[in-house]
Amino acid sequence: MKSIEKSPLQISRSLYHPKMPKALGGPVVLKEGKATESVADQAAIKELFPNTYGMPLITFEPATEKVAAPAVNVGVILSGGQAPGGHNVISGIFDGIKALNPESKLYGFLGGPSGLVDHKYVELTADIIDEYRNTGGFDIIGSGRTKLEETEQFDKGAEICKELGINAIVIIGGDDSNTNACVLAEYYAQKKTGIQVIGCPKTIDGDLKNEMIETSFGFDTACKVYSELIGNIQRDANSAKKYYHFIRLMGRSASHIALECALQSQPNVCIVSEEVEAKNLTLSDVVEQIVKVIVDRASQGLNFGTILIPEGLIEFIPAMKKLIAELNDLLAHNDDFNALETEDEKRQYVKGLLSPESREVYRDLPKGIARQLTLDRDPHGNVQVSLIETEKLLIEMVAKRLAKLKAAGSYKGKFSAINHFFGYEGRCAIPSNFDANYTYSLGYTAALLISAGKTGYMSSVRNLTAPAEEWIAGGVPITMMMNMERRHGAMKPVIQKALVLLDGAPFKYFASKRETWATTTSFVYPGPIQYYGPAEVCEQPTRTLQLEHNAE
Amino acid sequence: MKSIEKSPLQISRSLYHPKMPKALGGPVVLKEGKATESVADQAAIKELFPNTYGMPLITFEPATEKVAAPAVNVGVILSGGQAPGGHNVISGIFDGIKALNPESKLYGFLGGPSGLVDHKYVELTADIIDEYRNTGGFDIIGSGRTKLEETEQFDKGAEICKELGINAIVIIGGDDSNTNACVLAEYYAQKKTGIQVIGCPKTIDGDLKNEMIETSFGFDTACKVYSELIGNIQRDANSAKKYYHFIRLMGRSASHIALECALQSQPNVCIVSEEVEAKNLTLSDVVEQIVKVIVDRASQGLNFGTILIPEGLIEFIPAMKKLIAELNDLLAHNDDFNALETEDEKRQYVKGLLSPESREVYRDLPKGIARQLTLDRDPHGNVQVSLIETEKLLIEMVAKRLAKLKAAGSYKGKFSAINHFFGYEGRCAIPSNFDANYTYSLGYTAALLISAGKTGYMSSVRNLTAPAEEWIAGGVPITMMMNMERRHGAMKPVIQKALVLLDGAPFKYFASKRETWATTTSFVYPGPIQYYGPAEVCEQPTRTLQLEHNAE
Repeated sequence: MKSIEKSPLQISRSLYHPKMPKALGGPVVLKEGKATESVADQAAIKELFPNTYGMPLITFEPATEKVAAPAVNVGVILSGGQAPGGHNVISGIFDGIKALNPESKLYGFLGGPSGLVDHKYVELTADIIDEYRNTGGFDIIGSGRTKLEETEQFDKGAEICKELGINAIVIIGGDDSNTNACVLAEYYAQKKTGIQVIGCPKTIDGDLKNEMIETSFGFDTACKVYSELIGNIQRDANSAKKYYHFIRLMGRSASHIALECALQSQPNVCIVSEEVEAKNLTLSDVVEQIVKVIVDRASQGLNFGTILIPEGLIEFIPAMKKLIAELNDLLAHNDDFNALETEDEKRQYVKGLLSPESREVYRDLPKGIARQLTLDRDPHGNVQVSLIETEKLLIEMVAKRLAKLKAAGSYKGKFSAINHFFGYEGRCAIPSNFDANYTYSLGYTAALLISAGKTGYMSSVRNLTAPAEEWIAGGVPITMMMNMERRHGAMKPVIQKALVLLDGAPFKYFASKRETWATTTSFVYPGPIQYYGPAEVCEQPTRTLQLEHNAE
Repeated sequence: MKSIEKSPLQISRSLYHPKMPKALGGPVVLKEGKATESVADQAAIKELFPNTYGMPLITFEPATEKVAAPAVNVGVILSGGQAPGGHNVISGIFDGIKALNPESKLYGFLGGPSGLVDHKYVELTADIIDEYRNTGGFDIIGSGRTKLEETEQFDKGAEICKELGINAIVIIGGDDSNTNACVLAEYYAQKKTGIQVIGCPKTIDGDLKNEMIETSFGFDTACKVYSELIGNIQRDANSAKKYYHFIRLMGRSASHIALECALQSQPNVCIVSEEVEAKNLTLSDVVEQIVKVIVDRASQGLNFGTILIPEGLIEFIPAMKKLIAELNDLLAHNDDFNALETEDEKRQYVKGLLSPESREVYRDLPKGIARQLTLDRDPHGNVQVSLIETEKLLIEMVAKRLAKLKAAGSYKGKFSAINHFFGYEGRCAIPSNFDANYTYSLGYTAALLISAGKTGYMSSVRNLTAPAEEWIAGGVPITMMMNMERRHGAMKPVIQKALVLLDGAPFKYFASKRETWATTTSFVYPGPIQYYGPAEVCEQPTRTLQLEHNAE
């Protein structure tokens, strides 16, 4: 048997033709909407972005005749964490600029934004692009976390663009990367470099969205992978009837992923960080909320279930947030602390310096977690929140509380728990049909924005719960999404991060169902992403998108 | 938006008609092969199974006319850990006995073998069966780990069979459960109860297979789910280029799952427990093997990759096996030990009592793992090997070794590792087309064996790399798979557990490729199980089966 290079699905997916908005199938005409304003702090943003503020919304509509377009050279950058569909944005750009003029060229900057600054690039030719169509991952050119913030970086970037004759850069990234894309666009416009900058909304976390950007790409695929696994685990829980599975899900600060997975799989509990913060809950409150469900189910003879936990939870518990901030202040570059030898000494030292409230919170934490808070620190001396195994913390605290209730006679169940953390399992999955179509369309639209000479725009594809043919392609001025926020002690213009809205349709639907899901066993088993088969199986957008659109 | 009860895929899969061997599509005739012998210890096995030893192999072949069959009442039991396809075995039995005679009835014993003993059952009617067709999980009647070993249990079982008019019991389980099925068959035959017993080969671990049983069901689906995740993680590793992912995989003692996943995804390293044992490797040897790959890749600038680790590894390292055995002897019901308060005291106490070799092994273990070995004990005082986080153990030891090499100047790479454990994610997945077809055929065949009055047989469906229509259905006397093994101090007749054969085609293929996979990045990305689409995408059997068949 010969060695395999690609799986059968890889081979088959390479032949898939992404669907696009009907308008993009032939010649288009650019329609301008009305001038835009930023979502807040209009005066400040306007002053900071004199060249890219207030531009109109754009849509592309079918035109009757093709206008000859000059060739363009485009550079593309993948920025930040992987998200399914990145490769299709790039193939969309490629096909878009080649359709406009076969002489157009696409360059990929290597390893993220640093590739632009350090002049590391590759020309992306048809044979390279064809290798990556409809695949997951960012490996075509790699990604990186260098932030484009300094004018020196911008100037270095302009140098290589000049050398390669690059007219435009497409930055595929999250809210921060798109903020930087806008700053770069403004800078290049101001310096009259002739280099346009276009952004693309990427992140599995789902926290880059607004009135005009319905969702970031990758969210659909990642949530479907996690929901597949949650569903499988739920079926196991419901078969074995002896385990509670505590499942932590990636997603940074926002709980969009946990919420979407809950909507798809109907677990017994899903914690939503934004609600925890709004209600000013303590860690004990969260534990109590879970314990209540477990006790109730035990009274029905049900000693199994699933609990979903968003990655960012710990930072949304006000008391924990305060403790973490104090620890960061106390321990960063603290040689006295670092000189202590045993864990007990370190624990005592920390306790002595904390505020009374934080000392109490710290004291109540399981030892293993307290250790993670004081020992595992990033190069800046900060606690690495994402490494804190919140699911294990909750298991330990829930078990303790249940033991007390058992001793008091008010709980008679059995509690065995298993922990999971899902993140890397979904960030580079083969994009769902939705994400494959959406990203390809975003890339193709970026090409049209470039050809139209636009800069400071984010590529936008809307009406996403309709069939792809009916999607609306266009551009949104990035300044429109901005407000002023305090970052590192100074006010900065940034794209507003979209957290879960407690008065939004997805959360409200969840809130209306969660009691039933808690007390009964209403598990849904989504199964793996399907690329073929009936449309209702392989073409569904997320429940979040569906609920948001239905509410409009 | 209304609440969902089932996912689109659940709804769509409920309509799937499993494919069967062509012979089972109409009337069949039973063909007997030659008489069989047990694989070893023939005299002893024959003596223990006078009524069920030496029976012939059976195949079912198409017949020209249908013979009227009397109605049968059948009881079915799910035994042990979940495996995808269990529900289809049951629907296969149901359709099989109904096709023979619509008056036939199927009872499900609840919660595993204990349901038979405790007389807990439900009649499985068409509407119940229809709810579970082609689904994952064992929730239709639940499963359990009670062992049917005592004649008292057998007699209690016979009682309820008599009460319900049950002619035959089908036990769906692994090697131990099928061993017990055979003992039960023999007992019922000897007592002339008129109750037949038929086994079905279930286990995701893949360790119930032999000359006549090509694979156990569930192995296909579970390996495909794990391989999907491994592939996704590999694409992430290859995009981010900064992490080594250490992935532990379920599978109990045998490394079939790890090996199959390696064949599907081509990771940089896959440890095979059976090889570790055969070569008498120490834990340090295993660490060194991984370190060698990491150092080699670092010299090429590659500081990322994937390492697959079979769940049972720790028990296959002779020195660890010895240590665990000593700890079990030392610590079971040891009140002196339990009275000690601090971890350090316990550690010192244990060290004082171990043999010199084991003391050395114990001393070299990371503290966290040493703690798991001494503290986390099952109700019998034994170390719970499956709870030992071998992936974290290896990460810690590899990191230590790399730090030494770095200090010595012979390693210049960066090492960051992330750990994963996959098990519950795959045991209850929606069965692949292969497993859906295979299990339905196994169930249907069991019905035919029952109708033919057979007992002590395992349902068998062979020729599994051919299209389902060409599969060969029949029965294999369970005694044929048996040998005598020492269990709990006494010699017992048991089905031989099938570990990975180092001279088998799957391992040999792996061994021929692993150097390339280690030093290059030859990752394959299998993607999620597909139920629709091109046959090469949705109908592939495991690579293990393909390699084994190609070798024949």
